[in-house]
Amino acid sequence: MNKPQPKHWKTKLHNIIYEADTPAGKWFDIILLIAIITSIILVMLESVNSIDAKYHSLLNISEWIITIMFTIEYIARVITVKKPVHYIFSFYGIIDFLSTIPKYISLVFGGVHALAALRALRLLRIFRILKLARYLGASNNLVKALKASRAKISVFLFVVIIVAIILGTIMYLVEGEENGFSNIPKSVYWCIVTLTTVGFGDIAPQTPLGQFIASLVMILGYGIIAVPTGIVSAEYTNQNKNVPEPEKLDVDLNTQACPNCSAEKHKDNAEFCYNCGHKLNHE
Amino acid sequence: MNKPQPKHWKTKLHNIIYEADTPAGKWFDIILLIAIITSIILVMLESVNSIDAKYHSLLNISEWIITIMFTIEYIARVITVKKPVHYIFSFYGIIDFLSTIPKYISLVFGGVHALAALRALRLLRIFRILKLARYLGASNNLVKALKASRAKISVFLFVVIIVAIILGTIMYLVEGEENGFSNIPKSVYWCIVTLTTVGFGDIAPQTPLGQFIASLVMILGYGIIAVPTGIVSAEYTNQNKNVPEPEKLDVDLNTQACPNCSAEKHKDNAEFCYNCGHKLNHE
Amino acid sequence: MNKPQPKHWKTKLHNIIYEADTPAGKWFDIILLIAIITSIILVMLESVNSIDAKYHSLLNISEWIITIMFTIEYIARVITVKKPVHYIFSFYGIIDFLSTIPKYISLVFGGVHALAALRALRLLRIFRILKLARYLGASNNLVKALKASRAKISVFLFVVIIVAIILGTIMYLVEGEENGFSNIPKSVYWCIVTLTTVGFGDIAPQTPLGQFIASLVMILGYGIIAVPTGIVSAEYTNQNKNVPEPEKLDVDLNTQACPNCSAEKHKDNAEFCYNCGHKLNHE
Amino acid sequence: MNKPQPKHWKTKLHNIIYEADTPAGKWFDIILLIAIITSIILVMLESVNSIDAKYHSLLNISEWIITIMFTIEYIARVITVKKPVHYIFSFYGIIDFLSTIPKYISLVFGGVHALAALRALRLLRIFRILKLARYLGASNNLVKALKASRAKISVFLFVVIIVAIILGTIMYLVEGEENGFSNIPKSVYWCIVTLTTVGFGDIAPQTPLGQFIASLVMILGYGIIAVPTGIVSAEYTNQNKNVPEPEKLDVDLNTQACPNCSAEKHKDNAEFCYNCGHKLNHE
Repeated sequence: MNKPQPKHWKTKLHNIIYEADTPAGKWFDIILLIAIITSIILVMLESVNSIDAKYHSLLNISEWIITIMFTIEYIARVITVKKPVHYIFSFYGIIDFLSTIPKYISLVFGGVHALAALRALRLLRIFRILKLARYLGASNNLVKALKASRAKISVFLFVVIIVAIILGTIMYLVEGEENGFSNIPKSVYWCIVTLTTVGFGDIAPQTPLGQFIASLVMILGYGIIAVPTGIVSAEYTNQNKNVPEPEKLDVDLNTQACPNCSAEKHKDNAEFCYNCGHKLNHE
Repeated sequence: MNKPQPKHWKTKLHNIIYEADTPAGKWFDIILLIAIITSIILVMLESVNSIDAKYHSLLNISEWIITIMFTIEYIARVITVKKPVHYIFSFYGIIDFLSTIPKYISLVFGGVHALAALRALRLLRIFRILKLARYLGASNNLVKALKASRAKISVFLFVVIIVAIILGTIMYLVEGEENGFSNIPKSVYWCIVTLTTVGFGDIAPQTPLGQFIASLVMILGYGIIAVPTGIVSAEYTNQNKNVPEPEKLDVDLNTQACPNCSAEKHKDNAEFCYNCGHKLNHE
Repeated sequence: MNKPQPKHWKTKLHNIIYEADTPAGKWFDIILLIAIITSIILVMLESVNSIDAKYHSLLNISEWIITIMFTIEYIARVITVKKPVHYIFSFYGIIDFLSTIPKYISLVFGGVHALAALRALRLLRIFRILKLARYLGASNNLVKALKASRAKISVFLFVVIIVAIILGTIMYLVEGEENGFSNIPKSVYWCIVTLTTVGFGDIAPQTPLGQFIASLVMILGYGIIAVPTGIVSAEYTNQNKNVPEPEKLDVDLNTQACPNCSAEKHKDNAEFCYNCGHKLNHE
Repeated sequence: MNKPQPKHWKTKLHNIIYEADTPAGKWFDIILLIAIITSIILVMLESVNSIDAKYHSLLNISEWIITIMFTIEYIARVITVKKPVHYIFSFYGIIDFLSTIPKYISLVFGGVHALAALRALRLLRIFRILKLARYLGASNNLVKALKASRAKISVFLFVVIIVAIILGTIMYLVEGEENGFSNIPKSVYWCIVTLTTVGFGDIAPQTPLGQFIASLVMILGYGIIAVPTGIVSAEYTNQNKNVPEPEKLDVDLNTQACPNCSAEKHKDNAEFCYNCGHKLNHE
């Protein structure tokens, strides 16, 4: 976006943070990117007891660095944005806040580092990963294709769910509690596991009849896995077609022939033959 | 469907129940929709022992409410429909009846609430979910695509079954009873589990030879999973194509405008303007 | 196939057995179809010990009926076919023989009914199911599509195998024998199980590194499962396109020949021969 | 590649090794192909303890034969190539060296045949299989299709990973350590296992909530498995279109204009303007 050079430092800062078209802005983005990924890796590593035990202090320090960086970023965003309140209560605003605060809270209750609630809070930092979504620009007509087929896919998923509920109930009756289908929700869960060809195998039919129905479910799932793929790839092909197409779409040829030179394939709204210039008589 | 205003209360009621184009009809649909979904959730929750134990009375009451609602609906349908008998013995008629009656039966044999047969009957209410199918209008040429490829898909599934039977028999011979392939139907079941890439793992080949054949089966399944997808997406693309395509592909428009009436989009080899008949000067 | 009315009884019989265009021929086909399916069901049921125990005599009798039917069919085929030797040593000829003989052998060694070898022989009857393949006529351009993409699919499968071997070896080094990856063939097997998204779970990586590599394998498999599907559906779309194609062809070029130099393939609206410049007379 | 007949023996040898258009070169390729496949089979068999125990000496001998063949090939390559250093430090150069050397090292430390490091080294021979990639020429526009959709697929995989991280973290919170989701990386691993519909079942959700989320994950995975397939098959369809197109195009039209009436889009072999009959001057 081409915009006049900013003067005031706030505007400058705003551009650095919210735009990516200045060198500084680019640098800011890259650093933020690295910070987010690092913080996510940290959160992950912390959850691994063995690693947490060994490198606890190291993790702790780097966590503080990240936290301070995020704090600065958060404050900067609040200051420089036009409507601070709007930002603070926006999705990203809340995420940014929640992913910054827990470390400070952990200061207050120093001892209870392992406090589950706090961990949970810290885990929210994961959602910052969504900010990377901005870097996905490349996938434009993929998104279009998905949007275009959204309605159909949701219909399809709805069907899948109906099927899962009915078949799940049947399996619950056929297999019963002794074979792990201990209640309907569970056998619906099993049914989804099977229809989607995931097949954990934590629950599996034991009775011959159950296995027979299961086979039907699987073949059904195998048959219908084709549907969303078909939809998306069809829509997607259309998306691609629209690139060469534009010029052609809005032409309608009619079947009449020129009374004079009997040339055919006139545009539907043609008054005169494109070939000999003779007036066309519309039937 | 545009139809004359009903006068008689029966006709009114009929329209409310069977049509959705009056406000009352819409409301009826929405309420029915909610009732069905609720009843299904109830059936599911009941099957969960822990929940059933805790909230038994609550479930019981809400079940009664649903049952009465369904009863009223059922009677209303019977009264207002032109051919009551035809409705009563129709698929939905039977479902409606069976999903209403069990609660009343449970009154008679009060004690035996857990009576399996009764539960089973109550579970039939699940099938009412099929009524939601009416709300799937959106997926028209999806259905068309499926219809179009039905023949091919069934052929394909037929092939899958033949393959499953043959490979299943071979695996039965190779692995034998000691490795869980205790009889042919079971190893055919395993074969379907594998071909469809579900892979529960409740049965898995143990002998090297068995694992080798299994690998072939899997790669085969991987190869042929392509087929139904290919079919559907191809058919589906056709469905879509048939909307814009039929005549158009072979027209070339050029960008010149008519010097006289400045109409555009002339065919590339047009001599005269299709609009005013003026000679076109080719650049 | 239109052919002169047969006179001799052999020719008659031949037509009944090998053709399906006479009522008798149709009946023969249907009965054979039923017989084959029955025999396969019998073979399957026999392998289920519990069933075999209960209904042994029943199974035995029906087996005899089937066997005799097959014997008659086999003899009839040998008699009526032009080149009996050619038929006898053809794939189907051998299958037919092997699926008929075991029952008679079991007479000789009456006691040893459970003789594994004999069972195996009887199981060969399964292959008779392949005869049903004749009823698959419907799937013509499906087969074409597969033929067309055969080369590419085999290339693709070749790649899958290479990937499986390399990754399998890596997993063998990473996980080692203690985690079930007891040798390279086995971990290649695991790799195929994973790449094809079957995922039995009989072997699963235990070490973090192993699980990381496994994740890559899975995402890879997820990514490349697209390929064969893409190939087939693309080929299949082409197969379908070939229907509209011809019509398109004679839009660009028409079928008339130049009256002077008899050059063909003129553009449909050509006034003069592109080859000799002679005026074209439009029919 | 058509090239002048080589004279010097080095050039001759070079052609045999690096080209495949001389009979000798073809033979060399075939022998190399067999040698590589054999060596890989050997490596695999060796890893199977039972086989290694039985046929150790046989394996050892054939290993020596292969090793010597590879040594000769390696030396030949180094001698005949224009830039030996460049080859030696190229990927294949290193692979060739590493897949040749271990056997010789094993001479030095004769006793420690089972030395893990050595085995590992020997396993590197697996990578020689990549040389077979040269025989994949057939899959040209498949590769093109993949290249074309590379950007989109990577975007897609990136999304999958983000989803896996977020859902993995949620599952870690929901299921917790007691159900096998012992840390975030592990539940991310589970999430990938599930999203890709592999479903090992080594880890499976136990809590109702966990199973509910899992169902969503699976349906999500089921929905998005469509995306890469859609992309590839769409791209691939385009690739294919480009094949019939060119041939059609130059049947159609070239870019020259008629010097007289400046009509365009003449057939490529047109001598005269199809529109005014004027002689066309070919540039």
